[in-house]
Amino acid sequence: MNRNKEPKVAVIMGSDSDFPVLKGCVKLLGEFGIKTEVSVISAHRTPESASEFAKAAEKNGFSVIIAAAGKAAHLAGVIAAYSTLPVIGIPIKSSTLDGLDSLLSIVQMPSGIPVATVAIDGAENAAILAAQIIALWHDEIRDKIKDYKSQLAKKVEEKDRALKEKIAEEVLRK
Amino acid sequence: MNRNKEPKVAVIMGSDSDFPVLKGCVKLLGEFGIKTEVSVISAHRTPESASEFAKAAEKNGFSVIIAAAGKAAHLAGVIAAYSTLPVIGIPIKSSTLDGLDSLLSIVQMPSGIPVATVAIDGAENAAILAAQIIALWHDEIRDKIKDYKSQLAKKVEEKDRALKEKIAEEVLRK
Amino acid sequence: MNRNKEPKVAVIMGSDSDFPVLKGCVKLLGEFGIKTEVSVISAHRTPESASEFAKAAEKNGFSVIIAAAGKAAHLAGVIAAYSTLPVIGIPIKSSTLDGLDSLLSIVQMPSGIPVATVAIDGAENAAILAAQIIALWHDEIRDKIKDYKSQLAKKVEEKDRALKEKIAEEVLRK
Amino acid sequence: MNRNKEPKVAVIMGSDSDFPVLKGCVKLLGEFGIKTEVSVISAHRTPESASEFAKAAEKNGFSVIIAAAGKAAHLAGVIAAYSTLPVIGIPIKSSTLDGLDSLLSIVQMPSGIPVATVAIDGAENAAILAAQIIALWHDEIRDKIKDYKSQLAKKVEEKDRALKEKIAEEVLRK
Amino acid sequence: MNRNKEPKVAVIMGSDSDFPVLKGCVKLLGEFGIKTEVSVISAHRTPESASEFAKAAEKNGFSVIIAAAGKAAHLAGVIAAYSTLPVIGIPIKSSTLDGLDSLLSIVQMPSGIPVATVAIDGAENAAILAAQIIALWHDEIRDKIKDYKSQLAKKVEEKDRALKEKIAEEVLRK
Amino acid sequence: MNRNKEPKVAVIMGSDSDFPVLKGCVKLLGEFGIKTEVSVISAHRTPESASEFAKAAEKNGFSVIIAAAGKAAHLAGVIAAYSTLPVIGIPIKSSTLDGLDSLLSIVQMPSGIPVATVAIDGAENAAILAAQIIALWHDEIRDKIKDYKSQLAKKVEEKDRALKEKIAEEVLRK
Amino acid sequence: MNRNKEPKVAVIMGSDSDFPVLKGCVKLLGEFGIKTEVSVISAHRTPESASEFAKAAEKNGFSVIIAAAGKAAHLAGVIAAYSTLPVIGIPIKSSTLDGLDSLLSIVQMPSGIPVATVAIDGAENAAILAAQIIALWHDEIRDKIKDYKSQLAKKVEEKDRALKEKIAEEVLRK
Amino acid sequence: MNRNKEPKVAVIMGSDSDFPVLKGCVKLLGEFGIKTEVSVISAHRTPESASEFAKAAEKNGFSVIIAAAGKAAHLAGVIAAYSTLPVIGIPIKSSTLDGLDSLLSIVQMPSGIPVATVAIDGAENAAILAAQIIALWHDEIRDKIKDYKSQLAKKVEEKDRALKEKIAEEVLRK
Repeated sequence: MNRNKEPKVAVIMGSDSDFPVLKGCVKLLGEFGIKTEVSVISAHRTPESASEFAKAAEKNGFSVIIAAAGKAAHLAGVIAAYSTLPVIGIPIKSSTLDGLDSLLSIVQMPSGIPVATVAIDGAENAAILAAQIIALWHDEIRDKIKDYKSQLAKKVEEKDRALKEKIAEEVLRK
Repeated sequence: MNRNKEPKVAVIMGSDSDFPVLKGCVKLLGEFGIKTEVSVISAHRTPESASEFAKAAEKNGFSVIIAAAGKAAHLAGVIAAYSTLPVIGIPIKSSTLDGLDSLLSIVQMPSGIPVATVAIDGAENAAILAAQIIALWHDEIRDKIKDYKSQLAKKVEEKDRALKEKIAEEVLRK
Repeated sequence: MNRNKEPKVAVIMGSDSDFPVLKGCVKLLGEFGIKTEVSVISAHRTPESASEFAKAAEKNGFSVIIAAAGKAAHLAGVIAAYSTLPVIGIPIKSSTLDGLDSLLSIVQMPSGIPVATVAIDGAENAAILAAQIIALWHDEIRDKIKDYKSQLAKKVEEKDRALKEKIAEEVLRK
Repeated sequence: MNRNKEPKVAVIMGSDSDFPVLKGCVKLLGEFGIKTEVSVISAHRTPESASEFAKAAEKNGFSVIIAAAGKAAHLAGVIAAYSTLPVIGIPIKSSTLDGLDSLLSIVQMPSGIPVATVAIDGAENAAILAAQIIALWHDEIRDKIKDYKSQLAKKVEEKDRALKEKIAEEVLRK
Repeated sequence: MNRNKEPKVAVIMGSDSDFPVLKGCVKLLGEFGIKTEVSVISAHRTPESASEFAKAAEKNGFSVIIAAAGKAAHLAGVIAAYSTLPVIGIPIKSSTLDGLDSLLSIVQMPSGIPVATVAIDGAENAAILAAQIIALWHDEIRDKIKDYKSQLAKKVEEKDRALKEKIAEEVLRK
Repeated sequence: MNRNKEPKVAVIMGSDSDFPVLKGCVKLLGEFGIKTEVSVISAHRTPESASEFAKAAEKNGFSVIIAAAGKAAHLAGVIAAYSTLPVIGIPIKSSTLDGLDSLLSIVQMPSGIPVATVAIDGAENAAILAAQIIALWHDEIRDKIKDYKSQLAKKVEEKDRALKEKIAEEVLRK
Repeated sequence: MNRNKEPKVAVIMGSDSDFPVLKGCVKLLGEFGIKTEVSVISAHRTPESASEFAKAAEKNGFSVIIAAAGKAAHLAGVIAAYSTLPVIGIPIKSSTLDGLDSLLSIVQMPSGIPVATVAIDGAENAAILAAQIIALWHDEIRDKIKDYKSQLAKKVEEKDRALKEKIAEEVLRK
Repeated sequence: MNRNKEPKVAVIMGSDSDFPVLKGCVKLLGEFGIKTEVSVISAHRTPESASEFAKAAEKNGFSVIIAAAGKAAHLAGVIAAYSTLPVIGIPIKSSTLDGLDSLLSIVQMPSGIPVATVAIDGAENAAILAAQIIALWHDEIRDKIKDYKSQLAKKVEEKDRALKEKIAEEVLRK
């Protein structure tokens, strides 16, 4: 891998119906300045595309692959089987079982083939994790991640102030 | 498919540590007179073998594929992705979560690619289901299945008698 | 069984309130050209009908029975107890427990009497599995299944293209 | 039903391997002076026996039927489908899922056909519940149940005293 | 207990917000001609009322007590602790955990004090179970239960016919 | 309550079989110098003792009540119903369901009657929580709690050193 | 701690989106006359604020800390790690898993650092528990708690009367 | 970060009792030639050490932090709160709930602070994931990972051959 090249992340999903959940992930990667390619690839309906995508991912310049799927969610595991790049799995909550099936299908990978699993529907955290991985050798992105994290803290502090003011006003009004 | 050929079932497992659970399956297929080929194929560690096996299965004369795996159990789903033969999935209970992860990873397949799932560690039922499928066009195996089922009933009746005698004796002894 | 006869599948459900979920199953069997008979039979409210149906199913020309039920879903198991035809079970999600009760009541069958279980509300997969079983000796249906599967792949590829175009347009518009 | 006849309870189980759990139930019914008949009947392997047993149960003089089974435990539900006698279900813990499958398969009965479910492996409570039902018109058994319950309380009080003495001695010894 | 007296059932609930679920239970008991008294009693907020109610229930002429509660649902168990009448527990689904907490809090009673548990929100089944218990010595109610059960079967058969006609019409219309 | 009196904690359990789990709790309360009275009281088998104990607890000088029980664990809730003292509940893991039933039966208390729930089998934490509550007005116990907590930290640091030495030695040995 | 000072409770939450659930808690503390300070502090986004808050809580005059959070809910545990004050944890139900993740993340604390856990979304019970703790040395609040509890009982009794009247009227109307 | 420096991974655990599970992780990192530092740090018992460790981790030359803990497993989340390095979480199975509590406490992180979660007790996969992350800029480790993965495949193929031979022999022996 040429460290000088622009880092690039693949975001793949088992069904285009997962895209609303993944939007936050794609948007955040954009904010971090990380080039992102989005694909709909099904481990079960287009298995050849999945394996070809995974086998070519490193050569195609990807550093990290983010894979989202629901139910018996095999996509992340199948990608991880064909690539040694870090694979981040996002379990998608579907119409039954509240995402528990997706979570267990992704996180409980057998020894040898890890998938870095984030929370059910945790699309933004997948983007942040990908950025943290790239930040290990990419100074600009490291700075952006640190910036993002301090923004997060500031937002919490602002909400704290806002809530306190709101409560104080309510007390005064009585 | 040539219906005149000897029916053949593939029994594949993600790890040879699953074989003790699968023994009953292989033995029962033998008793039904169904030719059986057993393989260790991992969806994650040998994904190419898995896809090649599945793509060639029909041409290689298999009628049904039985796939057993534990944890994030993708094997049955991956095989089903590459073949239109009926695939029977056996969820294997592993060291944590009591087999719930394996069950959900196998049974909750997305629309389009079914896996015929049996109980956790339900290896014998996988064999019977395979035989029931073959019995649809194979008279000898149909007879054997019916025979097997009446044996099952007889065993229950014998156990019923044995238990009743045992209880009667205990009452007499008092 | 006379292999020359038109293959026929029974679709039975514990309550007519399950029919909206099962519509996709019936429709898909129709598309595969498989004759289908639909019945409302309750394992608990009409147990005699259930056992009579199951005992006569083979003689009545059915090859596969698809049984859907919710809650303590005994229908598939009761049918399987009285017939050696392959029985496919569809767990229906009901008002509590998100379908987990239906799933476990159907899939965890004791040794001797298998039910080929598909996903919770997985009605279409039940149809495909039935067709895959019939395809083992029915060339026309085998061709249709293969066709169906390649359609599935094409649809994923189209959605992939559509999503990529949509994202590209959004980028251009900015 | 002739209220003057000796009350009789049926204890049936899906497999004789459930008998060790059920021993306490049979023994307790004996202590209450309730005639008990024990049978091994499988809802899946001997479905005809199950339905015949249930249909004849009232005529054969049973007042209550206790049915125990594990996994996809349909026995109690099947019996309840064929009889209007009260049916008590005991979910048996089996090798996987810690009895949750048995519990849900028994307790989640659809509207119309109730099963009075006790705790997983709660065999003694099934006996007490049967006795409480019979006690509604049988004075002797009512007295025995009340006696049993006050014995239970005394045992707790004795254990309370014993534990307190043991702790007091340990304190003195120091 | 005087068997000649009119049978009477108590329906108690932990909160009046449970009444919509219980309506079907009260209505069905009325249809069976069973006198019913409905109370709001909380095991936790009015524990004295609960214990007094339970202790006086037999003397007050009740044959069966139906107790419904949600969350950590102790009501049925508390009533059972103070009475030897059969207690039927209805787990109420509340705002979290889909009724699993209520179910386990009611069904998993320790040895000595059974609660006859029905399905989550299974209010009608509680009424039927109470009627089945009373029917053991009350011929009129026994006849009504048998009648009710054959009505159930008829309704399923009607729905079966209706669904078949509907499907036939749809086919014709095409 | 007279703050000058020696603080006293009640430790009650549903069955003496829970005592092995509770030993650590009793021992730790002793180390904190908190007077402790241990009782076996069953919410279901000795409900009168439970309510009397709870009603008299404040007058008898208790500050906190620790109640441990398994399965449908109502003890803590019943005590809390009859007393306004803080009640700490310890869910005991029993033979099935891994303690989930006990946990939900204790923690999911309806609005109005809280139980301060600790982890399944978390007996030591119940003692610490009781001490933290008493420490709010009892300086000596406050000092002991702080001391205990710094001991905890020291033990972790010692184990950290020990593990590092062990690993270093293993490396040298190679 | 100076027992003469006005008791004060901290209510902290991981996100201001939890405030609607917590409103009942804050309101109830107000009704008990307990001074309350509300803050938004995230264990993960503002960890330094969390630790500083916890370390200073005792000195700042708080007696009890109520901490609410959802998903992997670490807030209560992190606060408990830095303070020896009693910490009450409220698991918040979030968009997936129905609050089970929050509950287990809060209640299953390892030995040494307890969190007094209440029901999922059990905000009012957290307020009552805090008041019960303070009531141990604060007579006014003790009286208010007892008053509150008898109000609870009265409300149940009123609802009991109202429901009985409503049912009686319905019967008359027929 | 200086990419020329030797990559270094921290392996921390909440308790030294977790070390047997983590041994495979430490050993595998050694085989990949990745410098590893092992520590016992408790998020709850030594929170200051945890935050100091995390804040200094980047400066101290670590690239990845692997954190293992059981029950309400906050360690990984607390570390992730104080560092922007990628944090890999290993849920440890403890004495109750089969690791589900640990898994949910680690994987369900709220938006903003990801933890890359592997399977329950999945220590080896944590090592491989760490190596895959480092391999993105470290050619030697990339080669080792690829080598490791092809070894994995070879082992499966060997086991496949061994199992087939064993079965063939058994067949011959008969």
